[in-house]
Parts: sequence; structure tokens; C-alpha cells
Amino acid sequence: MVDTASRSTKTPADERRTPTVPAKPARDEVAAPIPAPAADATPVESAPRIDVAALGRQLLGTWADIRIAARERAAQPELQRIEGQTMAEHRERVLEQLQRLADDGAVHRAFPTALGGDDDHGGNIAGFEELVLADPSLQIKAGVQWGLFGAAVLHLGTQYHHEKFLPDIMSLKVPGAFAMTETGHGSDVAAIGTTATYDEAKQQFVINTPFRGAWKDYLGNAALHGTAAVVFAQLITKGVNHGVHAFYVPIRNAKGGFLKGIGGEDDGLKGGLNGIDNGRLHFTNVRVPRENLLNRYGSVAEDGTYSSPIASPGRRFFTMLGTLVQGRVSLDGAATSAAAMALTIAITYGNQRRQFNAASDTDEEVILDYQRHQRRLLPRLATTYAQIFAHDEFLVKFDAVFSGKADTDDDRQDLETIAAALKPLSTWHALDTLQEAREATGGAGFLAENRLVGLRHDLDIYATFEGDNNVLLQLVAKRLLTDYSKQFAKADAGAMARYVVAQTAERAYHGTGLRRLAQTIADFGSTARSVSELRDEETQRELLTDRVETMIAEIAGRLRDARKLPKADAAAAFNRNQNELIEAARAHAELLQWEAFTRGLAKTTDPGTKQVLTWLRDLFGLGLLEKHLAWYLIHGRLSPQRAQAVTAYIDRLLERLRPHAQDLVDAFGYRPEHLRAKIASGAEQERQDEARAYYAAHRAAGTLPEPEKSKR
Amino acid sequence: MVDTASRSTKTPADERRTPTVPAKPARDEVAAPIPAPAADATPVESAPRIDVAALGRQLLGTWADIRIAARERAAQPELQRIEGQTMAEHRERVLEQLQRLADDGAVHRAFPTALGGDDDHGGNIAGFEELVLADPSLQIKAGVQWGLFGAAVLHLGTQYHHEKFLPDIMSLKVPGAFAMTETGHGSDVAAIGTTATYDEAKQQFVINTPFRGAWKDYLGNAALHGTAAVVFAQLITKGVNHGVHAFYVPIRNAKGGFLKGIGGEDDGLKGGLNGIDNGRLHFTNVRVPRENLLNRYGSVAEDGTYSSPIASPGRRFFTMLGTLVQGRVSLDGAATSAAAMALTIAITYGNQRRQFNAASDTDEEVILDYQRHQRRLLPRLATTYAQIFAHDEFLVKFDAVFSGKADTDDDRQDLETIAAALKPLSTWHALDTLQEAREATGGAGFLAENRLVGLRHDLDIYATFEGDNNVLLQLVAKRLLTDYSKQFAKADAGAMARYVVAQTAERAYHGTGLRRLAQTIADFGSTARSVSELRDEETQRELLTDRVETMIAEIAGRLRDARKLPKADAAAAFNRNQNELIEAARAHAELLQWEAFTRGLAKTTDPGTKQVLTWLRDLFGLGLLEKHLAWYLIHGRLSPQRAQAVTAYIDRLLERLRPHAQDLVDAFGYRPEHLRAKIASGAEQERQDEARAYYAAHRAAGTLPEPEKSKR
Repeated sequence: MVDTASRSTKTPADERRTPTVPAKPARDEVAAPIPAPAADATPVESAPRIDVAALGRQLLGTWADIRIAARERAAQPELQRIEGQTMAEHRERVLEQLQRLADDGAVHRAFPTALGGDDDHGGNIAGFEELVLADPSLQIKAGVQWGLFGAAVLHLGTQYHHEKFLPDIMSLKVPGAFAMTETGHGSDVAAIGTTATYDEAKQQFVINTPFRGAWKDYLGNAALHGTAAVVFAQLITKGVNHGVHAFYVPIRNAKGGFLKGIGGEDDGLKGGLNGIDNGRLHFTNVRVPRENLLNRYGSVAEDGTYSSPIASPGRRFFTMLGTLVQGRVSLDGAATSAAAMALTIAITYGNQRRQFNAASDTDEEVILDYQRHQRRLLPRLATTYAQIFAHDEFLVKFDAVFSGKADTDDDRQDLETIAAALKPLSTWHALDTLQEAREATGGAGFLAENRLVGLRHDLDIYATFEGDNNVLLQLVAKRLLTDYSKQFAKADAGAMARYVVAQTAERAYHGTGLRRLAQTIADFGSTARSVSELRDEETQRELLTDRVETMIAEIAGRLRDARKLPKADAAAAFNRNQNELIEAARAHAELLQWEAFTRGLAKTTDPGTKQVLTWLRDLFGLGLLEKHLAWYLIHGRLSPQRAQAVTAYIDRLLERLRPHAQDLVDAFGYRPEHLRAKIASGAEQERQDEARAYYAAHRAAGTLPEPEKSKR
Repeated sequence: MVDTASRSTKTPADERRTPTVPAKPARDEVAAPIPAPAADATPVESAPRIDVAALGRQLLGTWADIRIAARERAAQPELQRIEGQTMAEHRERVLEQLQRLADDGAVHRAFPTALGGDDDHGGNIAGFEELVLADPSLQIKAGVQWGLFGAAVLHLGTQYHHEKFLPDIMSLKVPGAFAMTETGHGSDVAAIGTTATYDEAKQQFVINTPFRGAWKDYLGNAALHGTAAVVFAQLITKGVNHGVHAFYVPIRNAKGGFLKGIGGEDDGLKGGLNGIDNGRLHFTNVRVPRENLLNRYGSVAEDGTYSSPIASPGRRFFTMLGTLVQGRVSLDGAATSAAAMALTIAITYGNQRRQFNAASDTDEEVILDYQRHQRRLLPRLATTYAQIFAHDEFLVKFDAVFSGKADTDDDRQDLETIAAALKPLSTWHALDTLQEAREATGGAGFLAENRLVGLRHDLDIYATFEGDNNVLLQLVAKRLLTDYSKQFAKADAGAMARYVVAQTAERAYHGTGLRRLAQTIADFGSTARSVSELRDEETQRELLTDRVETMIAEIAGRLRDARKLPKADAAAAFNRNQNELIEAARAHAELLQWEAFTRGLAKTTDPGTKQVLTWLRDLFGLGLLEKHLAWYLIHGRLSPQRAQAVTAYIDRLLERLRPHAQDLVDAFGYRPEHLRAKIASGAEQERQDEARAYYAAHRAAGTLPEPEKSKR
């Protein structure tokens, strides 16, 4: 066991005096060198303390009050998951819960004030995200109803549709499906097969499913509860396909039977989210009035003439899809909440659970005192903090765009790029953290009563719905490549030449053939700088920024001629760089998170909290460096010495942070009604206390049987 | 899309002529260097072909016939999981399936011939592992009954117990629990709280649970079906605690009620394996006859005198636990099978599914042609192959020990070390692969009908039961440290001195302060050697071996004085190296897998198969180098140039292996009755064919609506 409490009283000066020396000098054995722990230049007179309440308020972010109210709601047992219900029971329960949310007006913030909403987009998402605490099925089914089905009517429809359809959607009188994905097309929405052909004679659209692959699939509310759907289809009029548009289509009668021409299937049991009735739909020449085209971005006149405020079909398509970005926003937040819950459970248990008595004859170690256990949980805690800060900024940006406060094309594109960058990382992080928390709590973690497995099952699909994570990251990378090209397009004639010189110089220096935008940073390969620089905010920023820029510059260099190639060859060239492109996008997203954490840190005022959060941010930053250490070494950005210091300093940070682990998860502010995990309820502490008291009493009374060992 | 078919006809000579040049020479843009793809020195006249049938036979391994028969059994619907059953239904069904296995004599191979078994330990495990294809719950409940409860009676009991208890265990007349783990102690079995105190007057043991933490927990068969249990407890006689021993204890009457003094709880719903009735048991002074002590390794005479064939209580404890290693053996095999199934499903689907048409105006790409998709699936396929070869060797070793063919203390210790090394890697790999396969198949992968989620839920607990993976790896590391010390203990006086010199020399050379057994390998930092050396078997072996040895030597160096420290300080010193110790153990396990793959490859005779398997083994080996690339760079074992070549050559291997991906999974030999995944049934191919035919027909007829884009 590392006695972190006593170690933290050691002054930095002590450590500098004995940088590489173990407790006793070696005499008769070989002196093997030991990596020096990075000396800490910050004098810490006494151990810092976190102001948990203040930190908790900061973590709640911009819409703190809405989150607090939403958490009160999520604490109601009626809204919570009952483990072990059958799929049918669970679906029924979640539908009832949805009605309760509608009746309480808990889900209408994003809708127009005129219809009883608040026109509050950021607040709406903040409140919505917290539903994950009650049951992810409730969150996602609410998301289907109001965030997809309702939001499509809101954002793709016009006044007519708002007045005609939104009231019943808001009240849940009309549960509906968001019929975009098809069995054959998920990521490539533009290629869906469903058609909506305008019939001038009857002024109707004819919705049709031409083949099995064009069945709508995986749609919440489609298997049972939906009586209408927003159906995405290729709009065809006068023999021209104007691309994907959305149509409001009634699908079931009051008795729950499909309307004429409509059929479907239940997707059945899923890996999680079984409170949602996902299903398939298909359409055989189903007719809807011309007015049912949600026509904000494209209209068809009575005579079949198509018109749109956006001339380019491509831009129109992306603008339409862009109005639905809120799904990605809310998954980023909900996934981060799930990770925070998982860590609260695992760290609370890890602080109470004991196993093995390596350091003492009587007392077993608290498992969070084991270095490996810290390595498993604390870096994930740092990432979760980064995500919380990044998410709040993301939500502020989303609110600015959707409220119209800052709603240029550039703003919208930035928002979509941020969404495509952050959602993959946070949803993967949630799965990874839930799994690590499960394993870190052993057999107990596998029991449904401790919540981790249920959350993991439900969150699994977050990695591929609302945009497959790998596809989203590729979108980010393409944007980064485009930005990179623009930079050179605007540059004067000398810029390229200077870039060449800089590259060549670097190549000569590092000998590894490449690569960095000349202006970005100074040389980090120098061994002269002290290892303590790794703790420096600017060093971390520059190393992380440099990696993104260099990766993109390298790929751009390799692809610079691809545009001139025949389509197939260009695609092949792109494909040969696909993996690295996605890794570059990930690096970009990591940088966004790191920047957000750093800005959050700058707003922290309490000195003790600031100190601990600085260590946590450093753990996040150095964790990224360690993960990508080979890249930094290959590219000469870190010397082998400094690379070793990264890991040594991470070990040091773990020791420092360990005493604050409980405060750091307590600051998330989850109450027992939110966690609902027996192992995080204090029951483990009671068991440990009882067992230790039992042995202590028997030792004191001399009634403990003597161990056989001591007889020999 | 990378057109791998046409690319593979390019000769290596072509490639050497243009190592860094893109398709067109740059004129007006900067020429950025491109990392050279590693040139392939092996002339491949025509693309190799795999002999799938022969490879399939090789993969079935030593007990091929038993596996084939067991797979026939697993193909029976009556033995298979029905998705969506309630926990109660599932438990009942699995109990019935267990009875069927018993009635068929399918699970008795390990038991004595005299009692109707075959004394065939390896064959028993081989057949048992294949049950995972039917339902992991069936596998594990069978494992509880015959592999733990029955095996404890077999291996820890003596003739009396075999004759008295085994027949009813074999027939399932007595379903039983293996009552070792307690709520308070899982990994540290030696510290369990349950006591068995000998009462000389009545010649009985009194089994008692002293506090809540000592309740037995997570026991299969404990919640409902078990009528007896093997209970592990501290054996106390004459005031002395002789450590953990096992006792046969009836727990329920014929009506299913607990016997006097016994109580328990149902563990309830779990993250998976819900066909098993896991539960808790506690004992209040429950009396069993003296004879119910399973006394192969420790006996108590009528007068209470304790005796054992093993003098050391520590060695006795580990010997007793060692007899139960088969759980770890079988999990290694079953986890590998699950990974193989997952890859068969995902790769089959990836070969049929199409999305996006980057390379063509009409045809969408097969998703396995995307580089990223290959990166996600093919390295995991390589690891799965390595595990299959490693597992068969492992099982041969197990059989040799348990059959008595090679059953020295060293053999047993080696077996346990191999088990502790391989089980963590394969169970983690299964979870990782099931998840990647789930994500790689998108929304379809999330449906229970496609099996991936169910398998993942069930396999989750494999990472922590039968030994927590992190704890097992720590055991491996301790063994490696011990072996390392012994090496120097046996060495002459000059050995240490030479080691120092070697270290110092290296330190001067690499400048990073290190550190390697002098005799292991030559300098790999030299840039003179061609990158093609990475493909060389010996190079891979030496790099992988060197890393294990160096890591252990480094840690040993840092811990060399720890033994002399007070217990708490020694523990702290150890703890500061815990994370790296576990990583060293992982490196050792990876090397075991690589060696096994390489030996398997040596036995492959068909030239085409051998060529493809060589690429696959290289992908596995280079994948390990890439994963640990920072280590190789920091320690000067790979130059930056060669480190870059690792990734470039992996990309190349992916292109080469891609056309063989289907053959490589087909060789696993799973039939549709085993996979039972709709997306791997050919349904996707039908949908794709139908959709393409639809568009082709309309294009030919001129009835496809013109896209809007082309009008502008």
C-alpha cells in the first residue's frame, strides 16, 4: 500500500534530494537505475482540500438550476428503471413515464413559447440529459418523441406543421417515430431508398419502399406505440430526385393497427434500452397530402414545381440534417453522466472495500490504495472531468446557434464538427468506464442491483446511433483537412516555400521525415528542458496542438494529388489514410476536451480545489501524451528521457490525487436515489467494520485460533 | 476503397521502384515525404489460397473429434439459449439442459473410469468449452456442477468421497454449489471468514459464518437448485487454524427448503449468465460428520489431531487451489471461441454490407474494404488465432499434469502460471472483440437476434471470476520475478558484474538509463538493418522476449532491497511498481501466445495456407510491437524509422489479408446453427443484391429519376 497521506507531507525539497534512491542504499547488490519521479516545483505547505459544494456547482454548468430540478425528477421512483422487468413490461412502463413527463411539462422547453414551450434549446437539452439517471430507456424514448420526431417537425416544418402537429406531439397524444434509418442505410442517409413521389393530379406524395433494404429500421416507437412518423424519403417530382426530405405520415389507427399500405416488424429484444419499442416500417404507395412535406428547406407547389431557399442540393441536405444535431449534443452529456455515476460507484466502493494484507499482519488494504486500482479509475475520472467541462461549452455553443444568437453558416458548421468530435469520445469513454468500474467492483459489479451492467447495456448503442462514432470522426477529419487546405489557399506565395524549408530543416534534425506547421511550436525534443515542464500548461497545449496539426499536415501532404485522380483512385488514396485520419480527428477531440478542462480550471477560485483540479487536468493531459507517446518519440517531440518522465509523473499524480478521489466523485452531486447501487450505499463499509471488529475483539480476548504457521 | 485484388498482382519489384511516390509526381505543390511501405522480399507469383478444410482441422487441435461431437451437441436447439426468456424461465431451462447432458453422459469424461467416467481431463475440457456455442449459461452451470462442485470432491476428496458423492453429482441427482467466495473475500481466498471447528465429542465439524462479510456469495446453484455444497472454511481443531479446507455440506431438503442452520439469498438479476441461479449462503453452527472433510490434503483424526501430506500450510493451500485450475483453462478456451464467433459474424457481414460510394457513381463499397474496418477486425482475428494455438498447447499441458503423465511440482506451477497468464488476455480479448464486432455491425449488432450483445453480456464476468484478471497477472509477475532472482542465485560471482557492465554500456549508448539482460539480444536500435527485418520471425521473437525480460529486470532492480524493509515499506515499494508488474505479466502472456502461433504455423503444410497464416502471425506480432512502440523507442530497441515501418507494414498486411478474411473465419468451422445470427446468414447479401438489381434495372430502363444535382 502506498500511504498517500503520509507521503503527501513530504516536501518537494526532500524529493529533490533523493531523486533516484530507494529507501536503503544498495550494498551487496547491483544498483539498477530508477526513473526519477518528476520533482514538483510547487510548494504545498499542507495538503489541499476541495470545496466540494463549490466544485459541484461549477460542474453543474450553465444550466445548473435546470439540472438540479431534473435530478429531483430523476430521483422519483416512478420514473426509474425496475431491473428484471420483461421487455413488454419495461416498454409499457416507459410509455407511462413519458406521459408523466409530458403532463408535467418537463420536456417542452425547446418548443415555441406560443405552443407552451420556452424556446430554450440549451436548457431543454440540459434537463433532458439528466433523465439518464432514472433510466436510459426513458431518456432515449423521450429523445425519440420530442428530440427527433418532434424536433423534425419543429426544425424541418413550418408554421402550418407546428400548429397542426406539435401540440399533440408535445402532449404525447401522438407518439411518433423518426423514420430516417433504413436496414440498408444508416450512416449514408443520402442514399436511402424510400421514395416520395409527387402526384400532381391528386396533390399528394406517394411514399414507397422499393426493396427490403429500404425498410425503415431500428426506429423507436415504431414497433408498438407510434401512431405517426416523420419519414425521410427521396423527394421526386417531375421526374427529378431532389434528395432526402421529411414527410409527416400517420402510420397507425386508434386501435394500434397499421394504416393501409403500411407494414412493419418488431426489432425485438436488444442489448439494452429494452424500454423502447424499436421496430421496422415499410410503405406500399402510401399517400399523404402535399402539405405533409416538412417544407422549411424545400417545397413543392401544387403543380409539382420544386423550390428551396438553399440552391445546392448538397448544402440543403446537410443543413436539414444539421438541425438534428441535438441528438449528438445530448448523448455527449448523458454518456458523461453515466461515466460519472460509474466512477462514483466504483470509487466509493474502492474506498471501503479491503482485500489482501500485504502491509500489515492484521489490516487488509483498501483497494483504492493499490496503484493498479488507481491507474484503472483515476485517469478515467480525469477524462470525465474534461468531458463535463467540454460538454458545457458545447451546449452553450448549441444554444447560441439554435436560439439564433450566433447562427451563421460557420457557427453551424463549427457546432456540427464539435458534435462529431465529442460524441464519439464521450460515448466510448462511458462504455470503457462502465466496464472498468464493473470489473473494479468484481462479482458485485456484475449484479444488476449495482447498476453498472444495466447502464452499460443501455449505453452500448450510444457508440453507433446518432452517427456511428468512426464515421463521425471521419467527418471531423475531413473538416480539418479542408481547413488546412484553406489556410494555404489564403497564404501568400511565400508561405508554401517557408513551409518546405521548415519541413526540411526539421527532417534533417529529427531524421524521421516530417512534419509540422512551422509556426506552431518550438523544439520539444531538446533534452535541456527540465522534465517538470510537462506539468506546464503551455507545454501540454503545444504538444497536443502540434500533434493534431502535424497529423493533418502529413495526411494532406499524402493526399494533395488525390483530387486530380480518377474517382476510384482518389478514393483508394483516401482509404489508405483512413485509419490515421480518424486518429487525427480523435487527437483533435482530445485537444478540445483538454482546452475546455483548462478553461474550467481557470474559473475555479478556491485554492485547494484549484490545486487538486490542476493535478487532475495534468493527469488528463499527461495521460493523452502517454497514450500517444510513440508518436511524440517518432516525431522527435519528446526525448526518451522526457517520455519516461511522463509515466513517472502520472504515477506521482495518482498518489497525489488518491486522497481526493472521494471528494472528486462526491462533487458530481449524485444522491443515493440517483446511484441506487447497494455497493455504493455504505453497506460495504458496514461489512468491513463488522469483520474487523470481530477479529479485533477475538484478538483482544485471546480467542482467535492460533494459525498453524506460527506453530512451526 | 482499396482494390486489394488488383493490388496484390503488383510485384514487389514495382513497389521498390516507387517506395515513397504517390500516383502522380508533385509539380506545383510541396513534396511531402511519405513513409515507405515496407517492401516485401517474398515474391508472390499468384495470390495464395487457404485450404480451409485443412486449416479448420488444425484449429480444432488435439481433441478434434471430441470438439466435433460437442459442436454437434451444441447445434441442438434444445440446448440453446432462447433470447428474451425471463430469469426464472432461463434458469429452469438450463437446469433441464444440464439433466440432458448428464443423461447423455456428455459431461463425465474427467471422472474415474470406475464410476463411469473416462479419466480424460483434456478431452473433458475440450468438450465442455464448446458448450459456450449453445449458451454460456449452460457452459458455466455445467462448470459449477461438474467442474467445480464435482471436481472439488474428485480432487480434494478421497476414495470414500468419490464413491459416496460422485455418482449423484455426475447424474445431477445432487446439484451442488462451490462455496468458496464470500461477499468479503474473492481474490484473497486464504482470508475467508467461514469456520469449520472440530468437535471431538461428537466427531463433527461445526460450520459457521461469523459475520455478514463471510456469507458465501455469487455461487451458482445456491439460489435455487443446489441441495449440497462444497464449503471452503478455516479448519480449526484443538485451537489451531489449519487454513482453508473443503467440506461436503448438504444444504437443502428434497422440497428445496434450507436445512437447519442454513440461510441464503438470491443474487438476483445479473449482467449476464441469467440461466444460472447465483446466490448467497450462510451457516449458523451447521454440523457435518468428520468424514465430510474432503481430506486428500489434510485430515483430522477422531481425536482432533490434524495431519497433512504437505507440511507447509502455504504450499498446501496453493496445492489445493491448484487442483481447480481447470476453470481457468476452460474459460481461456470458451472466451476464444466467443471471440471467433464474433469475428465470424462481423467479418461475414462486413463482406456483404455496403455503405457509401466513394469510388464509384453506382456501386457502394463493401465495408470490409475500408481500411478502418480492416483495422478494427483483422488484428483481432490475428489475436484470436494466436489464442487458439496457445489454448491447445495449454490444454495439452493441463492434460499431462492431471493425467499424471507430467505431474511434478514444477509442472503444476508452470500450468498455473500459464493459466494465470492466458485467461486474463483471452477473456479481455473476448469482451473487446464482441464489442468491436457489435459496433462494426451497427444497429443490427445491437439486436439480440444477432447474438453479439447476449454473448458479451454473458462473457463479461469471465474477466473477474475464476480469478480476477488483474490479480492473476500479478501472480504471473511474481513468478517471473522469482524466476529472475533464481537465475542470479544460481549464477557465478561474475554474472552480476557482467550484468552491470552490460547495463552501463547500454545506458551510455541509449542515454535513457537502462537495462537489459546482456545475453538476450543484439542491438535493434541500429538503423542499418532493413525494415523488412520486422517480418523476420527471430526479430519478432527477440523483440517480444527482450521486452519481458527487461521489464522484469528493471522491476527486480527497483525492488531488490524491498525484502529487507519492514513489511509496510516493502509493500509500499511493491505497490509503486504494481502497474508495471502487471504490464510485464501481460507482455509475458503475449509472448506465450506469439510463440504458440509460431509453432502452429510451423506445423501448417499447405503453402498457400502457410503464407496467409504467416501474414496473420506477423500482424499479431507487429500489432504487439505497435501497441508497445513507445517502450521500444524509449529503450532504444527500435529506431524512429523502424518504429514507423511497424505501422506501415501493418497497413500492408491488412491489405494482403483482406481477401482471405472470409476463409480465415470460415476455418473456425461454425455452422449457422452455431452462429444463429441473422446478419451472418446471407440475408444481408440478398438485400444488397436486391437493391443493386433494382437500381440497375431502373438505370437500364431509363426510369430512375434524374438527380437534381445534374441539372445544375
